[in-house]
Amino acid sequence: MQTLIIVSHPTLADSNAQRFLWESLPAEGATWHHLESVYPDGQIDCEAEQQQLLQYDRIIFQFPFYWYSSPALLKQWQDAVLTEGFAYGPDGGRLAGKEFGLVLALGVNEREYQAGGKEGFTISELTRPYQAMATKCGMVYLPPLVVSQFDYLNENKRKELLIGYQQYLSKDKDASLKTAENWFKLQLQTVGKAGLSEADQQLVEQLIAVLEDNREQLDDLAWTLAQMEGNQLG
Amino acid sequence: MQTLIIVSHPTLADSNAQRFLWESLPAEGATWHHLESVYPDGQIDCEAEQQQLLQYDRIIFQFPFYWYSSPALLKQWQDAVLTEGFAYGPDGGRLAGKEFGLVLALGVNEREYQAGGKEGFTISELTRPYQAMATKCGMVYLPPLVVSQFDYLNENKRKELLIGYQQYLSKDKDASLKTAENWFKLQLQTVGKAGLSEADQQLVEQLIAVLEDNREQLDDLAWTLAQMEGNQLG
Repeated sequence: MQTLIIVSHPTLADSNAQRFLWESLPAEGATWHHLESVYPDGQIDCEAEQQQLLQYDRIIFQFPFYWYSSPALLKQWQDAVLTEGFAYGPDGGRLAGKEFGLVLALGVNEREYQAGGKEGFTISELTRPYQAMATKCGMVYLPPLVVSQFDYLNENKRKELLIGYQQYLSKDKDASLKTAENWFKLQLQTVGKAGLSEADQQLVEQLIAVLEDNREQLDDLAWTLAQMEGNQLG
Repeated sequence: MQTLIIVSHPTLADSNAQRFLWESLPAEGATWHHLESVYPDGQIDCEAEQQQLLQYDRIIFQFPFYWYSSPALLKQWQDAVLTEGFAYGPDGGRLAGKEFGLVLALGVNEREYQAGGKEGFTISELTRPYQAMATKCGMVYLPPLVVSQFDYLNENKRKELLIGYQQYLSKDKDASLKTAENWFKLQLQTVGKAGLSEADQQLVEQLIAVLEDNREQLDDLAWTLAQMEGNQLG
C-alpha cells in the first residue's frame, strides 16, 4: 500500500506532535508532503498535485485542528486540486476507490468533544465536511486518528501512538484480528531487536506475549462456542 | 443594530450572487468587509480586525460553500483573529453575546443536502464547525441563510432573497410576527414608492395587502381561540 500524507501546519518546526509523527514514519510506503514547505508562497501546483494523488492508494490529511478544521493552506489545496472533472462530476471520479483518512492533533482533551463536553460536538460531527468530501470523490472514509494533547502523553502512550500511526498509514482497513497480529509480527521481524534499548526490547517481548495470550484466549473462546453450537445442533 | 458582513470570495467580481447581495444591502446598519479585497497579500491585520469586531452586534460570514466550508482566506482570518485571550479562554470572551450568522451560496440545489440527496448531509451537519466556533466564543448562533443556485432564480425569487437578506442583516432574532410586520412597514416607509418601477410599486402594494390579510386572519383566529377558552372556563 502506498500512502500520501498531506500535512498542513503553518509552524511545523514548533510542533512536538508533528515531529513525533514524522519520526514515526514507516521505512517505506508512506510519503510526507508538507504543504507549507512545498508552497511557501501559497501558489499550489494543481497539475502536479493531481498527478501525485493518482500514485497513491490511501490519502491522509494531517493537521492541527484549528477552529474545528484545517489550517488555511490545506483548504486552499482542496479548492485548487479537487476540481470538477478530476475529483467529481462528469469525467471526474479519478480518486474513486482510494482510501481517505484524517490525522488530527487536538490541543484539548478528546473527551471534551461530546455533548456536554467543553467543545460540545463529537469529532465525527465536526469532520463531516471531510466525510462529505470523501463521499463526493468516491473515496472510502477511514475513522480519523486523533492525537490528543501530545505534549502530555507519557512514554508508553507515545509508543502506542507510534504503533497506531504506523497502522493508520499502512494497515488494511478491513483487516481481521489475525491480519492485525500478522502485521505486528511482520513489523517486529522487520525491526528485529538490533539497536533497541533494553526497555524497548522488553516492550517488544511484552507485545509478543500479549499477542500470544490474546490468541490463546480467542482460541479457547472459539472452541467453547463451537462446542455450544454443537450441543444446540445435536 | 450594527451588522458586520465578512465576505470571502476569491473571484467576487465574477459572482452574480455576491453582486446581487451587495446591491441588496440596506442603506445603513450593515458593513460589507470583503477579505480578498482588503488583504490581497493574505496578511491579515489581527489588531484592526479585533477592534472592528467589537463595534458590531451581529457578525456574518458570507461565502460560497466550497468543499462544505469557506474559501481559505476566511479560515486564515479565523485562525489569526479569533485568538485565545480575545475570542475565548481566560480574559477572552470579548465577542460573547453578539450574534453570529452564515450566508452560504450553494452551487447545488439545497434539497440535495440531506440523507439520500447527492450531498448526503444537511447544511446543519456540514456547518457544525461554525456552530461550535460561535458556541466557544459565547455568540448566539443564527440559522444560516442559504442562497441556492442564484443564477437560476427568477425575478420573484430574487425579490424574496433581497427581503430575506435584509432581514437576516437587521431583523431581531427573537422578533414576533407583529415585530416582523413592523419591520416590513418601516422598510416600506423608508423606501417610499418614489423611484420604483410600476412593477415594483405593484409588488409593494401586494406585500402590504398580504400583511394586512394575514393580520386579519390572525386577529380572527385569536378572537376564536379567546371565545373557545372563555367557553371552556365558563
